[in-house]
Amino acid sequence: MANSPLPPSSRAIGTVAMRWHGASLELLDQRLLPMEEHWITVEGASGVSQCIRDMVVRGAPAIGISAAYGVALAARHAGGGDWKAEIKQAIRELAASRPTAVNLFWALQRMERVFHKCHSLDEASKRLAAEAVTIHEDDLAANLAMAGNALEVMHPEAPISVLTHCNTGALATGGYGTALGVIRRLHEKNLLTMVYADETRPWLQGSRLTAWELAQDSIPVTLNADGAAAAILAQGDVRWVVVGADRITANGDVANKIGTYSLAVLARHHKVGFMVVAPSSTIDMSLAAGTDIPIEERDGSEVREIRGIPLAPEGIKVFNPVFDVTPASLIDAIVTEKGVVHNPNITGMRDLFG
Amino acid sequence: MANSPLPPSSRAIGTVAMRWHGASLELLDQRLLPMEEHWITVEGASGVSQCIRDMVVRGAPAIGISAAYGVALAARHAGGGDWKAEIKQAIRELAASRPTAVNLFWALQRMERVFHKCHSLDEASKRLAAEAVTIHEDDLAANLAMAGNALEVMHPEAPISVLTHCNTGALATGGYGTALGVIRRLHEKNLLTMVYADETRPWLQGSRLTAWELAQDSIPVTLNADGAAAAILAQGDVRWVVVGADRITANGDVANKIGTYSLAVLARHHKVGFMVVAPSSTIDMSLAAGTDIPIEERDGSEVREIRGIPLAPEGIKVFNPVFDVTPASLIDAIVTEKGVVHNPNITGMRDLFG
Repeated sequence: MANSPLPPSSRAIGTVAMRWHGASLELLDQRLLPMEEHWITVEGASGVSQCIRDMVVRGAPAIGISAAYGVALAARHAGGGDWKAEIKQAIRELAASRPTAVNLFWALQRMERVFHKCHSLDEASKRLAAEAVTIHEDDLAANLAMAGNALEVMHPEAPISVLTHCNTGALATGGYGTALGVIRRLHEKNLLTMVYADETRPWLQGSRLTAWELAQDSIPVTLNADGAAAAILAQGDVRWVVVGADRITANGDVANKIGTYSLAVLARHHKVGFMVVAPSSTIDMSLAAGTDIPIEERDGSEVREIRGIPLAPEGIKVFNPVFDVTPASLIDAIVTEKGVVHNPNITGMRDLFG
Repeated sequence: MANSPLPPSSRAIGTVAMRWHGASLELLDQRLLPMEEHWITVEGASGVSQCIRDMVVRGAPAIGISAAYGVALAARHAGGGDWKAEIKQAIRELAASRPTAVNLFWALQRMERVFHKCHSLDEASKRLAAEAVTIHEDDLAANLAMAGNALEVMHPEAPISVLTHCNTGALATGGYGTALGVIRRLHEKNLLTMVYADETRPWLQGSRLTAWELAQDSIPVTLNADGAAAAILAQGDVRWVVVGADRITANGDVANKIGTYSLAVLARHHKVGFMVVAPSSTIDMSLAAGTDIPIEERDGSEVREIRGIPLAPEGIKVFNPVFDVTPASLIDAIVTEKGVVHNPNITGMRDLFG
């Protein structure tokens, strides 16, 4: 089990973003999808850290799981010297890889708690690997549970269409997906007419990853430019906008992929449900509100070029925040594996996560 | 004058999208900007028609002006046979080039009225050329007048920031621009802090054309992915969203580039002004409401690829409407050269255009 945290029928939960081999971690290079399926093998925390920073692996839960494996690799390959210092340094490096998704820090804290209980490098190597696998398995289990919880909220009597943003599928998680897991479950139960997938500029997670995942699993998908989402909602077919999250604060505000906030405003305007699906590892009760979340800005070249081809005048100024904050007041339901917070506010959040 | 409808100081009104030479029309190939400034020379209506269809030239007013020149070219190069039939056929072909922007049909009707008064091919050749140049000059004059009218509506006391979508500048018009003309005027009067330009997927008019035009004229511009517009409005710096139009119906509904409707919803949510700037040739009082406007859908490859590079799984289904409809109720002002309709509705529209 330690070598493969996925159940035998992994096809049923979608493709996978990573493969654990005990002494190394393979990561599917998500920058090259869907044109190329290329796996990168890393054997240390620095390699994992770089893969997170460069977005070889992305998606809040997948970042957390990868980081956990990174700590396990640090222990596995620690030199003969001060192994504790080596592992601590690995944790520090991994924590600095990306700032917004809290699952990263949550996973590292979980690894750190196990690390502090270890008395030898051998013990650390075994227990940290086991913990990373458990984090991975827990995430998959959480996704399966969330799908059930979400369907109880939606309770569609006939097939519905949904709209989603970014990629929240097997590629972004330990398997199955958060928002995309809910969509998989709708499809499994013959309750899905169509998934509209925002292409999700600038990184095109929708075109490259979500459309690919859904097509691989024969789930009906229609791709659209982000700017077309409003026209789609105006048509009246879509019943829910379903998205993931990178961090959820104590009042129910949600940081997620840039463009999510726009969809929340549009959903409310069109009286369409807006659902956030995320494991409880995404909840950060230590932050009061979304304004406290550090929002990563990435280089303007992500907007100015595609695969090195210029799309805009050279050097033109770009505003390229990776995430935005959707206020709780625009959210109908936050769905986690621990339960659902309807019309989230500080009280509802405390009741479930306090 | 017939050879160049632009005033000597054309620099002051921005770059140009077309050059008229009497026996031919040069069009700047807007598909290649900003990487390459390539001019295409056409000598007949079929060539103009193809350039409109293939988006060598785009933007509602520029499409109308080009089509007018196309009719003039048909007369200039008509054979010795049934010249009336040839010109009629040219008008039919041009009318079929694109469906949504009404300026095309408006310009062709204007040309047709002149055509019907002509008694010889020689007369037609001269009068149709003169009419096309007048249409071009009128459009430029309208843009200059609109900028004045818009500033009276905005009456900023200090410099403001604005957000715009698509390209509505010199490249989209007979010169100076509609919404971008207003932005130019703000800049000329030192009343502009920053223009946020949506990149405007799928065709990237914002990145490729607007950013280029503004940079050429040293107007401060920041490019953003369309999905980041909501986050920008939430920051509170932007006072107006300013856009153009492809067709405006009798009740004040506006068809414009896909993504415009989204901005209108977002502007209202953030209590930011939403202004549509268009010449009266964009008004179609024959249609009661936006639902009557034919909305062009283009091939899904515009979303699936960029410059032949695949961005999505091959053959994936795409919803790619070129325009959306913004209901009048979300618009604060429709600004034309004939005046301004505030909070547009059927009465206000009839008062000005009835």
